[in-house]
Amino acid sequence: MHKSLLPLLLFVFLSTQSLAQSSFRVSSPDRAIQVTVQNTPTGEVTYQIRYKGKPVIQPSSLGFMLQRPQVTLNRFTIAGADSSRTDETWKPVWGEVSQIRNNYQELGVRLLDKAGSGIAMLVRFRVFNDGVGFRYEFPEQTALTHFIVADERTQFAFAADHTTFWQPGDYDSNEYLYNTTRLTEVNAIAAAAKEKDIALQSLIGPNAVQTPLLLKTADGLYISLYEAALLNYPVMHLQLDKAKLTLTSQLTPDAVGNKAYLQTPAHTPWRTILVSDKATDLPASKLILNLNAPSTIADPSWIKPQKFVGMWWEMHVGKATWERAGGKHGANTQNVKKYIDFAAKYGFDGVLVEGWNVGWEDWFGNWKEDVFDFVTPYPDYDLHSLTAYAQQKGVRLIMHHETSGSVTNYERRMDAAFQYMQKQGMNTVKTGYVGRIIPRGEHHDSQWMVNHYQRVAEKAAQYRIMIDSHESAHPTGLHRTYPNWMASEAARGSEFNNAPTLGITPEHTTLLPFTRMLGGPMDFTPGLFRFRLNQFDSTRTTRVRTTLAKQLALYVTLYSPLQMAADLPENYERHLDAFQFIRDVPVDWDDTKVIAAEPGDYILTARKGKGTANWYVGAITDENSRDLPLPLDFLEPGKTYEATIYRDGPNADWDTNPEAYVIEKRSVTAKTKLTLRLAKGGGCAIQFIRR
Amino acid sequence: MHKSLLPLLLFVFLSTQSLAQSSFRVSSPDRAIQVTVQNTPTGEVTYQIRYKGKPVIQPSSLGFMLQRPQVTLNRFTIAGADSSRTDETWKPVWGEVSQIRNNYQELGVRLLDKAGSGIAMLVRFRVFNDGVGFRYEFPEQTALTHFIVADERTQFAFAADHTTFWQPGDYDSNEYLYNTTRLTEVNAIAAAAKEKDIALQSLIGPNAVQTPLLLKTADGLYISLYEAALLNYPVMHLQLDKAKLTLTSQLTPDAVGNKAYLQTPAHTPWRTILVSDKATDLPASKLILNLNAPSTIADPSWIKPQKFVGMWWEMHVGKATWERAGGKHGANTQNVKKYIDFAAKYGFDGVLVEGWNVGWEDWFGNWKEDVFDFVTPYPDYDLHSLTAYAQQKGVRLIMHHETSGSVTNYERRMDAAFQYMQKQGMNTVKTGYVGRIIPRGEHHDSQWMVNHYQRVAEKAAQYRIMIDSHESAHPTGLHRTYPNWMASEAARGSEFNNAPTLGITPEHTTLLPFTRMLGGPMDFTPGLFRFRLNQFDSTRTTRVRTTLAKQLALYVTLYSPLQMAADLPENYERHLDAFQFIRDVPVDWDDTKVIAAEPGDYILTARKGKGTANWYVGAITDENSRDLPLPLDFLEPGKTYEATIYRDGPNADWDTNPEAYVIEKRSVTAKTKLTLRLAKGGGCAIQFIRR
Repeated sequence: MHKSLLPLLLFVFLSTQSLAQSSFRVSSPDRAIQVTVQNTPTGEVTYQIRYKGKPVIQPSSLGFMLQRPQVTLNRFTIAGADSSRTDETWKPVWGEVSQIRNNYQELGVRLLDKAGSGIAMLVRFRVFNDGVGFRYEFPEQTALTHFIVADERTQFAFAADHTTFWQPGDYDSNEYLYNTTRLTEVNAIAAAAKEKDIALQSLIGPNAVQTPLLLKTADGLYISLYEAALLNYPVMHLQLDKAKLTLTSQLTPDAVGNKAYLQTPAHTPWRTILVSDKATDLPASKLILNLNAPSTIADPSWIKPQKFVGMWWEMHVGKATWERAGGKHGANTQNVKKYIDFAAKYGFDGVLVEGWNVGWEDWFGNWKEDVFDFVTPYPDYDLHSLTAYAQQKGVRLIMHHETSGSVTNYERRMDAAFQYMQKQGMNTVKTGYVGRIIPRGEHHDSQWMVNHYQRVAEKAAQYRIMIDSHESAHPTGLHRTYPNWMASEAARGSEFNNAPTLGITPEHTTLLPFTRMLGGPMDFTPGLFRFRLNQFDSTRTTRVRTTLAKQLALYVTLYSPLQMAADLPENYERHLDAFQFIRDVPVDWDDTKVIAAEPGDYILTARKGKGTANWYVGAITDENSRDLPLPLDFLEPGKTYEATIYRDGPNADWDTNPEAYVIEKRSVTAKTKLTLRLAKGGGCAIQFIRR
Repeated sequence: MHKSLLPLLLFVFLSTQSLAQSSFRVSSPDRAIQVTVQNTPTGEVTYQIRYKGKPVIQPSSLGFMLQRPQVTLNRFTIAGADSSRTDETWKPVWGEVSQIRNNYQELGVRLLDKAGSGIAMLVRFRVFNDGVGFRYEFPEQTALTHFIVADERTQFAFAADHTTFWQPGDYDSNEYLYNTTRLTEVNAIAAAAKEKDIALQSLIGPNAVQTPLLLKTADGLYISLYEAALLNYPVMHLQLDKAKLTLTSQLTPDAVGNKAYLQTPAHTPWRTILVSDKATDLPASKLILNLNAPSTIADPSWIKPQKFVGMWWEMHVGKATWERAGGKHGANTQNVKKYIDFAAKYGFDGVLVEGWNVGWEDWFGNWKEDVFDFVTPYPDYDLHSLTAYAQQKGVRLIMHHETSGSVTNYERRMDAAFQYMQKQGMNTVKTGYVGRIIPRGEHHDSQWMVNHYQRVAEKAAQYRIMIDSHESAHPTGLHRTYPNWMASEAARGSEFNNAPTLGITPEHTTLLPFTRMLGGPMDFTPGLFRFRLNQFDSTRTTRVRTTLAKQLALYVTLYSPLQMAADLPENYERHLDAFQFIRDVPVDWDDTKVIAAEPGDYILTARKGKGTANWYVGAITDENSRDLPLPLDFLEPGKTYEATIYRDGPNADWDTNPEAYVIEKRSVTAKTKLTLRLAKGGGCAIQFIRR
């Protein structure tokens, strides 16, 4: 990385005396975004953000309450400021694009506690063309060594009562549907009360919402509040003051109510504000990735994007169980062999096996510490012979480490568990954190757990193991730093199609790219080909609320380097022509273009397969049918492509006719203009192969 | 073990209809102790204990409150009862005696919740000649699988306002002085307020006291309330109801206020009541050991009692520091070499090295998680060369694992730490838990920590490592089950001689054998030969409040298979004649006789060295001088012994003349009667070598 201290040409000070200065302004490289930091006469330090002259964040205060030393840090004198300019390009190990530009103007404002504690801080702003990141830094100093954060008091004040896409603030679950209301209409408790299928709720209060929080202003701005590089700090939720239209950081507490234990030099994660007048800029933004540190893995050659299958959905639809007791154990040798055969036949890399290990009989809901040991298969699961069988077929088994929330137990056994994987030739693990956390009193979102997820990423890397974490805290771009942490769930995923109450609404997947997925890849597990889930239990009324074509499109619209084909082999074999798209679609890309999008309505994304000339398009809609124009100008000019279009059939409808699809082939060029007709709850997936 | 179901000859039922029975009585093998269990008309179940007709425990109720399922278990119907008789003898791996008789009458009373939960329980009593143990058992049953204990409601009601020797109830520290008052005069908060030198206090309330609790009745009974086999359960403290003269179990809560997480089949530790009209019976009792499970270590040949030295006291008296910063780092290569030389010269097995590893600069008081890694020596400590040097001298280095209370960190690193020890040829570790526990919100005495200590014992055994734990929960005889868990501190040890406020009173060590030491060996670290602690810091006023002879006697009166010679080599070299006793005294014994004792006043103990014909006597007194008759009838009749007597000098006095001692030799036989004259705060140590 090069980082140059430029003369302050791009940088306008409102005052010329740098030490007595009370106001600083910094702009994005393209000048569209302007951040102003002010020191009020009482000592408050505020920042505000404007985008093309429009208000994004009104003057909002910054500050902290410490529990030890017992100090409130909200009145400051400004000790000085530094600025710098960075414009660099870096290559991710894998991703949506092959290279990423990191282009920002930086401003660091040095603060001194006005109340006399002697504590010095710094607020560092990075202003990109698509948003702003800022964080607090606590330099090494005699006035502050070890300290305990009682509260962070970062405000985000809005100019109007914006439309807001929000989840209830919850310290343990981010698997809610999104609610769309005005800011003043937020009621997290009422929204959460409707969510009967979330196993563990730790609600914060009626006015608390999660980050990422998406807002849309009446004058056409899309704004996202989130965080980047969440390490050694708790997850930030937000408390809403409806009268002031202001959100304040609400950190996740630990067992005794403290928020974070830090030692100088220390810093918070980045608080991020994405803003644009084009909805498509948000899912395309690399701001959060850019605010994360570069990869810590010197040789990432062992890290491979992959597609996998597994009998996980059998458990959800009642064909099989995780536990052995009851006679329907899914992870038995013969069934796994069937999946290995299926994976080998259709070119999948891996087979995920859940329920393979002793402990599932009482794994859930008991707050039990010693649930699983991660190395003892059920007696009907012959891992050793299956490992050999899979290897011979060119397939790898994917490990499953469900912790049951008992993280102390997992941490004690992690080395042995990873060694066991190595011995079995396994290089990918799906981790799970279902249920109340042990250490008891900690939350999925508390600092201790954030540190745990980091420890898992680091230890797994030592063993050259890739991670797909479920029920972990929301991702904040850490896959840049830990590229073996391939994906996480951390949102309502496809399993909720089988949840009896709210399920997954048709709009849910049109919101994910603007919210959860800003932080990183999601193991959503798309690819369901059977829509009424009463196949093995005729009493079930749960159902998948998409068309089949939309299930295909999700492989493009929901980015992940780990993609599951989630349905049962027998369901795929009924639609092998459509299944072909899942077989073909890449999981690593050289380029991505979000062509059209409106949060909660639709998204249309095109991606170019890694190391190929071929493009793939996914388009999805909410409960409304719609026509989306698709200009093909992303294709290489002058070349001909064979397009294979997987689209909704003429009478397709998620509700009445989800399985109706049409597959057609045609030749196209960059000049071709397609119009994609999406059914209600429908979608379209296209493969473009360059001739 | 043989365990026979005898006809109920020794066993008296008050009623003859076993199912409708409402009262059961069971007696000790010698009939001195009688336990009566009654089911009152309202469903309460009470027990009472009498000793030779005198009341020990008045009718006291039994019961539980569960948090999940939410059930109060305090009204029962009796479903039946079983009885059995055990009389067996077993050999400890090491100990005060070479074999132990386990002789008791057992009664199991099966209870059914009267409130209709369907929950079945059992209270199992074992009545020994020197006391009673009882525990609750929860059999496997459909009405109860996983459950959370909100409270245990075990009562101990007394007939009178007995003299009581108590420590303030505290979930994190058992390093208090004992207070001697009537039950009704207990004030734990006031007592704790005087204790300025305890780093971390987590007091329970004014009427809460710790176990073991010692009482003395006006009619001459000595009673101890304690617990045995504390596994998977929190430490039991006691809440006093002064009006009713009743103590009720007060379990240590976890971070969220729960007490224990259990799964049927489950049981509590044993609640123990020792009782005798002879004070000497309490320290001699093997009841607590007998209530623990046999050793889990099949081949204990690697477990060796040992004596050791180390520079630990240098840190206390200000000669050196644990941390490297500051220029007085104790654990430097040259200093440790000096200790190895000293150990080799005088025949010690080990050298304890504290402050050897990176991290001490900010180890205390910050509630910091990643303090030590247990494998990184300070750069001035060349462990590798010292290992070789020690080996060549026939000495072993003893490892020190101070966790700083950060137990999650230790558990993550324990395997690596033990492997590192193995590589360095070390087989003994002193563990430490100074400071607030992580997982935050847990206490030293909570179930999670109790499970941790067990995990350490088990893992250490896998690596053939012996443990000496400091700041761990009070010992409850687990050294029978885990004989590699040699000793623990878990009380005010010799280090408090350097504590400026209360220090160690002359009576403290005369109480330990009746209290703390009932649970197991203590690493008290006796052997201080310098009494004013201003050797390296002339401003210090702290001092050791014993005579030199008493320091020697402690090696006999305070049993431990790990005994430290705690003082500095230069202090020993001033008194090499007296030091000879420390060199000679064994740390493993074939036999032990407590010859005379009064809690808080004096104790006189004789022990026979393991595998030898030689005896050792220790006698200590409190702040009063006294003459203790010592009949030598424990010696083999008809044999002559050379007695080497280390006694207080004529004008010895802990306050004015602590270093005055006399060493004399004389021939004695079993018929000889000695009188030991103990100075104020003095003692006497004698070696008897059979000719």
